[in-house]
Amino acid sequence: MSAIVESVPNFSEGRRPDVIAAIVEAYNSVNGARVIDYSSDADHNRSVVTLVGSPEAVSEALFRGIAKAAELIDMTVHRGEHPRIGATDVVPFVPIRDITMEECVELAKALARRVSEELGIPTYLYYRAAQRPDREVLANIRKGEYEGLKAALEAGDPDRLPDFGPPKLGTAGATVIGARPPLIAYNIYLTTDDVSIAKKIAKAIRHSSGGMRYLQAMGLLVEGKAQVSMNFLDYTRTPLYRVTELIRREAQRYGVTIHSAELIGLIPEQALLDAAQWYLQLDNLKPESILEWHIR
Amino acid sequence: MSAIVESVPNFSEGRRPDVIAAIVEAYNSVNGARVIDYSSDADHNRSVVTLVGSPEAVSEALFRGIAKAAELIDMTVHRGEHPRIGATDVVPFVPIRDITMEECVELAKALARRVSEELGIPTYLYYRAAQRPDREVLANIRKGEYEGLKAALEAGDPDRLPDFGPPKLGTAGATVIGARPPLIAYNIYLTTDDVSIAKKIAKAIRHSSGGMRYLQAMGLLVEGKAQVSMNFLDYTRTPLYRVTELIRREAQRYGVTIHSAELIGLIPEQALLDAAQWYLQLDNLKPESILEWHIR
Repeated sequence: MSAIVESVPNFSEGRRPDVIAAIVEAYNSVNGARVIDYSSDADHNRSVVTLVGSPEAVSEALFRGIAKAAELIDMTVHRGEHPRIGATDVVPFVPIRDITMEECVELAKALARRVSEELGIPTYLYYRAAQRPDREVLANIRKGEYEGLKAALEAGDPDRLPDFGPPKLGTAGATVIGARPPLIAYNIYLTTDDVSIAKKIAKAIRHSSGGMRYLQAMGLLVEGKAQVSMNFLDYTRTPLYRVTELIRREAQRYGVTIHSAELIGLIPEQALLDAAQWYLQLDNLKPESILEWHIR
Repeated sequence: MSAIVESVPNFSEGRRPDVIAAIVEAYNSVNGARVIDYSSDADHNRSVVTLVGSPEAVSEALFRGIAKAAELIDMTVHRGEHPRIGATDVVPFVPIRDITMEECVELAKALARRVSEELGIPTYLYYRAAQRPDREVLANIRKGEYEGLKAALEAGDPDRLPDFGPPKLGTAGATVIGARPPLIAYNIYLTTDDVSIAKKIAKAIRHSSGGMRYLQAMGLLVEGKAQVSMNFLDYTRTPLYRVTELIRREAQRYGVTIHSAELIGLIPEQALLDAAQWYLQLDNLKPESILEWHIR
């Protein structure tokens, strides 16, 4: 078993296909790391890449992608709906297998230092890698976007100083680098077309209004069915199965139930194994009880 | 993704440690196949090996183990409680990943032919590899054990002729080779010490008395708790989650419920993923939605 990390870099180009291709190619140019998915949004003028591999290979691939984006994207002329401060905007390290969150924090720090030293791009450390409590939240670092951060640094605002690199923004802007658990985007459809029930359930279960700590949720009407649309920010602490059963109980109170569920994007296998263990009440399930554990 | 098979050969020695070690070593001597578990029972005078790897490597390892057992075990003097006809008694091929049952049947036939030709040991094909309906059931092939089969062959009984090899038993006896799905040994503890409830539930759910087709079950009292002890003979057709919920409902009828569950030995990961998918109602879960699918 060898260590695997994921990274989901976001860069500020979602319209020019040649630029997007060149940056994705840079992310994909290191042996031992692989782009397994990417998508671009023209309105946001932003692309999201999913990269997996060994810690060393992913770190090198991220560096190459950041260098290429800095070469091809000019933030002084960039426009798009999604908040952004840099050509490469945000880069999380995500522990997948045989690597701890702490080790991902170290990878984030090392990359942030290298990017500032070799490319002259100011870098900020966020979430689990944050060096100050206010930088645990990405929105605080990105306040005012590229233009606002540039002005704040020019005005000498000490609160906005980067963790590494020069206190001024060039055409590549700044990059936020950090570590976080895997995100899971997960939707549950209800046996009703009454979207108000999905909205009430979303409000009951999400963190912002008193619900589960690592859960975002909203109610939508999707293809004629009420849907509770969710982001699981840390499935190890707010797990899928517990939220599913909470939704089932809340739905029952309105005389409906769960029709089906769907994943958007990828899920770490462990999140599904945790659900199987909980539902089957397999209290003492060990990794080595799973046959495939012995042949990886 | 490359093909992985499992095999669980049983050989007729459970007492002499040097003989057991030599045979296990023969199973472990091929690059690309690996013994991941073995256990010996002195009363049964029998050992069970679990071997995994590529189809080619596992086939070669099985051949070497059968040759070594034939060299070291003399069935004319073997005594033990478990029914047996050969030094290597039974050898199933089990599809684990990226290989079909049909391909495992072909592996079984090829090994049975090779063992008969190169070692002069008569071989019988069983279960999914059976060439005659009566040989789908292992007990039919093993009827009368080594001594009874030897006498039947000497008497010229056409029903007992091997699928491959000479119609007579030497000191190595005969070997039964076949293909089957992975077995899962699974126990559910109830919130009661009344073993009669476990016995009634076992009777309700098992195939032999009218229950689920690929399920064996019995009721036991284990460490003061009533336990439903089960073998899942084909979890793809009689799945863990369905049986668990059936037991939950039957238990309820007696005013008790499920305390916990436990695995004995190994489980294919897919059996747990199937449970997660069913309980979470993730109708359209695809292998490529699982992050690790992309990095194996």
